[in-house]
Amino acid sequence: MLEELKQQVYEANMRLPKLELVTFTWGNVSGIDREQGLFVIKPSGVEYEKLSPADMVVVDLDGKVVEGDLNPSSDTMTHAVLYKAFPNIGGIVHAHSPWAVSFAQAGVDLEAMGTTHADTFYGDVPVTDALTKEEIESAYEENTGKVIVRTFAERGIDPDAVPAVLVKQHGPFTWGPTAAKAVETAKILEVVAEMNYHALQLTRADIRVPQYLLDKHYYRKHGANAYYGQKK
Amino acid sequence: MLEELKQQVYEANMRLPKLELVTFTWGNVSGIDREQGLFVIKPSGVEYEKLSPADMVVVDLDGKVVEGDLNPSSDTMTHAVLYKAFPNIGGIVHAHSPWAVSFAQAGVDLEAMGTTHADTFYGDVPVTDALTKEEIESAYEENTGKVIVRTFAERGIDPDAVPAVLVKQHGPFTWGPTAAKAVETAKILEVVAEMNYHALQLTRADIRVPQYLLDKHYYRKHGANAYYGQKK
Amino acid sequence: MLEELKQQVYEANMRLPKLELVTFTWGNVSGIDREQGLFVIKPSGVEYEKLSPADMVVVDLDGKVVEGDLNPSSDTMTHAVLYKAFPNIGGIVHAHSPWAVSFAQAGVDLEAMGTTHADTFYGDVPVTDALTKEEIESAYEENTGKVIVRTFAERGIDPDAVPAVLVKQHGPFTWGPTAAKAVETAKILEVVAEMNYHALQLTRADIRVPQYLLDKHYYRKHGANAYYGQKK
Amino acid sequence: MLEELKQQVYEANMRLPKLELVTFTWGNVSGIDREQGLFVIKPSGVEYEKLSPADMVVVDLDGKVVEGDLNPSSDTMTHAVLYKAFPNIGGIVHAHSPWAVSFAQAGVDLEAMGTTHADTFYGDVPVTDALTKEEIESAYEENTGKVIVRTFAERGIDPDAVPAVLVKQHGPFTWGPTAAKAVETAKILEVVAEMNYHALQLTRADIRVPQYLLDKHYYRKHGANAYYGQKK
Repeated sequence: MLEELKQQVYEANMRLPKLELVTFTWGNVSGIDREQGLFVIKPSGVEYEKLSPADMVVVDLDGKVVEGDLNPSSDTMTHAVLYKAFPNIGGIVHAHSPWAVSFAQAGVDLEAMGTTHADTFYGDVPVTDALTKEEIESAYEENTGKVIVRTFAERGIDPDAVPAVLVKQHGPFTWGPTAAKAVETAKILEVVAEMNYHALQLTRADIRVPQYLLDKHYYRKHGANAYYGQKK
Repeated sequence: MLEELKQQVYEANMRLPKLELVTFTWGNVSGIDREQGLFVIKPSGVEYEKLSPADMVVVDLDGKVVEGDLNPSSDTMTHAVLYKAFPNIGGIVHAHSPWAVSFAQAGVDLEAMGTTHADTFYGDVPVTDALTKEEIESAYEENTGKVIVRTFAERGIDPDAVPAVLVKQHGPFTWGPTAAKAVETAKILEVVAEMNYHALQLTRADIRVPQYLLDKHYYRKHGANAYYGQKK
Repeated sequence: MLEELKQQVYEANMRLPKLELVTFTWGNVSGIDREQGLFVIKPSGVEYEKLSPADMVVVDLDGKVVEGDLNPSSDTMTHAVLYKAFPNIGGIVHAHSPWAVSFAQAGVDLEAMGTTHADTFYGDVPVTDALTKEEIESAYEENTGKVIVRTFAERGIDPDAVPAVLVKQHGPFTWGPTAAKAVETAKILEVVAEMNYHALQLTRADIRVPQYLLDKHYYRKHGANAYYGQKK
Repeated sequence: MLEELKQQVYEANMRLPKLELVTFTWGNVSGIDREQGLFVIKPSGVEYEKLSPADMVVVDLDGKVVEGDLNPSSDTMTHAVLYKAFPNIGGIVHAHSPWAVSFAQAGVDLEAMGTTHADTFYGDVPVTDALTKEEIESAYEENTGKVIVRTFAERGIDPDAVPAVLVKQHGPFTWGPTAAKAVETAKILEVVAEMNYHALQLTRADIRVPQYLLDKHYYRKHGANAYYGQKK
């Protein structure tokens, strides 16, 4: 079942090591079939060089395995929560990419400091609160999803316009219309974090860009009036 | 038309990923035929591995497409402004290379701190002013070119002697007699930015080099008395 | 003798340059046969590209060569001390990987700042005391092992739960049930050090994670209730 | 003439890009035949991929070309001064490797902070004084050599025990018994600079190692009682 989606999710997973976003098996990509309410995700702890499309696991939105011989990613429930809360997204990536993790550990938002950021993220990429003891000790992965959703709700951030988050003390999740696009965003997040880090060491001035720069660059690439790239 | 120039511009574009100056499609190179008043530029948002010389777009100095099926780079008007204002240059590069972008975001000039800098840049590489709301909301790419030209005029910098700029909140543009040379300068800018960053973290002393060192190293490689390299 | 172990130790050594953990010959891996009380270690100062499984040297727990034409690693006695003091470990790695060395030189513990750390290290990775003049001038390599053992004893750290150390003014040692696993841990240590470094530059807040996060993530991957990965 | 030395110097030059020590043509290696008082050096400004052993230029100790169709490296006179002042050295490397250049620009000595340093450098690697206006405007490259020699004399440093220097506002020179060994030292210098940089950002404590650690590690690899590596 879902053979085409499995192929897409497999290929998206395989891009993570090529884009230097993962060490060993520390990352996972999923993609959803919204009509069937099922998503496909990488199996847990399997080396990338041994993966095949047939290894992808099909799970429902409660995280229960519908098809597949292997255990799904241990982060499956986080993906499930995000798919339920963010209805427009089609793919999700989690990785421990070093620059993004550094900001997640430090608890420092990725402020919008330039056009590289604004081309993809229409505003700051937030860091969540740390999970509480109770949230960690029971239903940990589900609560990881919930703290992401809560952060976006409380701060009034549109997950379609800012398709990334840094989970405090943990690392980044990104998403998008497809698994492939979510992987691309994971790479962009990493590059933006690297640029922000060095800019922050160079100056103590407030270097966030104004709203009109965000408007210009984000809508240069997104929405009805986008004019970057080729007509599809 | 301009088949030889298209080939050169194509090859110059393809060097950007090889020199690790671009992520995804974030860069563009152009080259000009001064006699015809036309320049050749990369199409917008096309992946490097799919580019061919025939994809290069020919535009005039108002940025209008003269030949080509694809949209030219969204930054085409910035290139056009620079070609009009800087009459000696034959090629232009824009990239989002991380070290240079970090300085552009921080708003910190690349001060001349050593011979690596002085061999290519005869003085500091300036950061422009940020574009105003009005400059961003209308004719944005053209105004990006204009702020570069204004910066060089106001600060009295010769664009032939300092073939690079950091656009505030955005990133670097470099130029030179040919597209190939402008790409080389884009790489040098990135390396110089990396060296400057670390030097700035190591000391709070003023470590700009004196004018006589700039004179020595710049003219060792440039002008009638240059003695670096082989006779042509 | 010990042909299978030699092959394993050889392969583990060869992973060090692939994982970018060594410059030139600056690293060594060993693996032990607990029944025979003998361990196999890389020869001293031999280039990785010239190594073969037959070059591995067999030594006893006093560091005396039992088989092999080449000198064993100059760090052999450090390995011997660790095998004697830490009875559960099967393999040891020493490398001069740059991020871990930087912390060892600075004398800064690798505090647990996130899940990447907690997945592998159940608490801070300690820096040892500096060796004294006397400890350096006689039986230096043996004393290097002893200062590691003493550090774990004095600070009450379980070497099976924190399989790594930073020797002050020197660099990291890691260990594990097998040589292959110890190499993996050497890479994780390096990545964790990189993440910690950048987090420490981003904030002056205390960003150590609470004990319950360590409990959750460490035991997600280790022990009877681990649920990361596939059933073996 | 000197065909074997040309081959060695050629191979040593070709290792610079492989060891990631040069950008474009920014580096040069030479090797000397002490009996004939002639040295062989890379031609100026030639791309590495186009070099061949026959391109190497033979010059005498006044820097005059004895054989070769190409101009020798513009830094030839610096090499000549060092060969004359340091009678035991057989090869010299100059590169613009980024970590070492950052320290040279900042004017910060590479203090001995650990065993990685002590294995190769028996004490701090010094930064020279900046060249004066007069020293730069006439006989610049010769004066670059002289300021190196003066630095070692004034600070009482033995160039055989500390085979490297950082020329202020410029970058590193390394040397050794052969061109190949000098290249290896250039790489070690770069790695040591990287480690020192990060250690310096992690702590404000004085983290120089004591003399007895230098004694131990330097003489573990050098001199009559060395015991690292294999008997030759």
